Amino acid sequence: MFSAEISSEKLKEAFETVAVLVDECKLRFSPTKLSIRAVDPANVAMVTLDLYQDAFNKYEASEGEIGLDLERLMDILGMAGREETVILQLDETAHKLLISIGGLVYTTSLLDPTTIRREPKIPQFELPAHITLPGSVLVRAIKAAVKVDEYMWMQVVNGTFILEAEGDMDNIRIKVGEDELIELESSDEAKSLFKLEYLQDMGKALGKANEVRIDLGKDYPVKMNFKIAEGSGDVTYLLAPRVVESE
Amino acid sequence: MFSAEISSEKLKEAFETVAVLVDECKLRFSPTKLSIRAVDPANVAMVTLDLYQDAFNKYEASEGEIGLDLERLMDILGMAGREETVILQLDETAHKLLISIGGLVYTTSLLDPTTIRREPKIPQFELPAHITLPGSVLVRAIKAAVKVDEYMWMQVVNGTFILEAEGDMDNIRIKVGEDELIELESSDEAKSLFKLEYLQDMGKALGKANEVRIDLGKDYPVKMNFKIAEGSGDVTYLLAPRVVESE
Amino acid sequence: MFSAEISSEKLKEAFETVAVLVDECKLRFSPTKLSIRAVDPANVAMVTLDLYQDAFNKYEASEGEIGLDLERLMDILGMAGREETVILQLDETAHKLLISIGGLVYTTSLLDPTTIRREPKIPQFELPAHITLPGSVLVRAIKAAVKVDEYMWMQVVNGTFILEAEGDMDNIRIKVGEDELIELESSDEAKSLFKLEYLQDMGKALGKANEVRIDLGKDYPVKMNFKIAEGSGDVTYLLAPRVVESE
Repeated sequence: MFSAEISSEKLKEAFETVAVLVDECKLRFSPTKLSIRAVDPANVAMVTLDLYQDAFNKYEASEGEIGLDLERLMDILGMAGREETVILQLDETAHKLLISIGGLVYTTSLLDPTTIRREPKIPQFELPAHITLPGSVLVRAIKAAVKVDEYMWMQVVNGTFILEAEGDMDNIRIKVGEDELIELESSDEAKSLFKLEYLQDMGKALGKANEVRIDLGKDYPVKMNFKIAEGSGDVTYLLAPRVVESE
Repeated sequence: MFSAEISSEKLKEAFETVAVLVDECKLRFSPTKLSIRAVDPANVAMVTLDLYQDAFNKYEASEGEIGLDLERLMDILGMAGREETVILQLDETAHKLLISIGGLVYTTSLLDPTTIRREPKIPQFELPAHITLPGSVLVRAIKAAVKVDEYMWMQVVNGTFILEAEGDMDNIRIKVGEDELIELESSDEAKSLFKLEYLQDMGKALGKANEVRIDLGKDYPVKMNFKIAEGSGDVTYLLAPRVVESE
Repeated sequence: MFSAEISSEKLKEAFETVAVLVDECKLRFSPTKLSIRAVDPANVAMVTLDLYQDAFNKYEASEGEIGLDLERLMDILGMAGREETVILQLDETAHKLLISIGGLVYTTSLLDPTTIRREPKIPQFELPAHITLPGSVLVRAIKAAVKVDEYMWMQVVNGTFILEAEGDMDNIRIKVGEDELIELESSDEAKSLFKLEYLQDMGKALGKANEVRIDLGKDYPVKMNFKIAEGSGDVTYLLAPRVVESE
């Protein structure tokens, strides 16, 4: 059983964080939250989304999961104005999801969850450097780096967070200033290289966050965590480095 | 003889209602009004435009007709600012139309009216359902329907105006709420299916109208009428249904 | 030696005037100014840019020249907000140019000046007609002319500045009104035909100038001069007419 009511803005914000990486996904619901775990087709980037009950105006759910055509769903949600409310209702008998926005009812057949790429196991590891900064600062660096190469270094050097890209003829180096940082802690060297294509996709969602916490290591995946839906939702991206060393 | 002066905004608004369906047309003028009757190349959609003398700052005309390259004309009118005045003058000897916008004079050779698709006869028929609503409400439904199919049902069911589109995996159903309707009268069942491509084109002009009156029947053409130029002009679209039954 | 600091807005405005014609250029610096002289690949349009010391917050330079990938540079400068300051520094040993915008440092290898198209000699000649007008008035005429042909006549007839384009079926004629002109002097007939493609490119920079001084002759190149960077920079375009007569 699943039935919920939420502002269109919060729902779009939540699903957008997953839609930047995958077109289809499994949506799990439980009495306390909606969750999505997804990995991109190339197995390089993962996303974990939890949207808690208090993000909703109304929320009723048992345990369950459904398959979603996320791309289509985002297209439909695009019809809703910022102030509009969206009602989601699962019709388990007909195997359909009903989405109501004002007088508009969109009904979609659910995807068979077994045809959807398996949810990834989220690896657990400790990383030595932790950087917290506004999403917009990170996005600006990504946009600059794209101008010279396809990859970007993320590193902490002497207590400074540095982003760098090297082209054949030119390079770009961004030192994130003290005034742009919210927090930085580092117990060891941290320097890893990431594909900008993924960072750009993640940046579409990251860029709106006031605080993004980055966990960084040496040739290790980067973890980027931020809140959505006014604090009632939580998103984590995990991105593999270019050279993945044995874990 | 034809010579007229009008605000660029009104002239663009008027010609735009025809330009969404055809690239060329015959323009008829008489001592009291300008008129255009045109049918789209596939014979599915018709438009009737009447722009009355009081829409103009100055208006002098005898009876006559000229052939217009409407697409080109709209392009030229696009040069005019909203507040600018447009002067139209027919040079019958040279067979040219002069369009003045400030210090700019655009002179175009007229098309031979006999080379332009014949003006359609406007069929007369009574339809059982009448719906009046803001153009923006109709356009929003069209935009939603396009997301799931190429055709949209327009119907009146138990005093409610319902628009619906059905895709393979999903469907969308829009009930126009009481608060969005201006008027609805229905003496009999009304339900017809229309190609969204035409509704989208018409929507470009319809969407700006505060009141659109829709006349609807059962597998019959739909008629959509609205005022332009602050009430000094009148436009009617007629769109054939997917299944045209004998008239 | 070359080291300078300037508002991003002024630097972009200056380089943009050259970037509309060429992708690469030589940049000359001297103790008092930066200069660029460039000619487009087809040898039809030339630009002269001088950006004086007082356009800069800080400026230190000996005599020298470097080769610039202008297209890339404009792309990087696009990262800077309007209020941001740009620092330019030449590293002569490494043969690199450093561009700093806030915490971002972009380092580019310089192009070998000998591989860049030679700087043009700027021809000197007297022209009989002089028209001064806001850049926006000229740009509007260019935009109108493009709708009917690829070429535009610029002419002074009886003390009026007239721009005209002739298509096969239509033509457009723009008389620049007294109220739109800043000044007009003419000692002889002036009428020349120019390719609109170049005027459109120049228009991107010209359009922002409050005053553009046009020098015009009979089948002669047109000269268009305007100030940039709040008067601390000077730009001249020279455009060959369609029929170039012997000088």
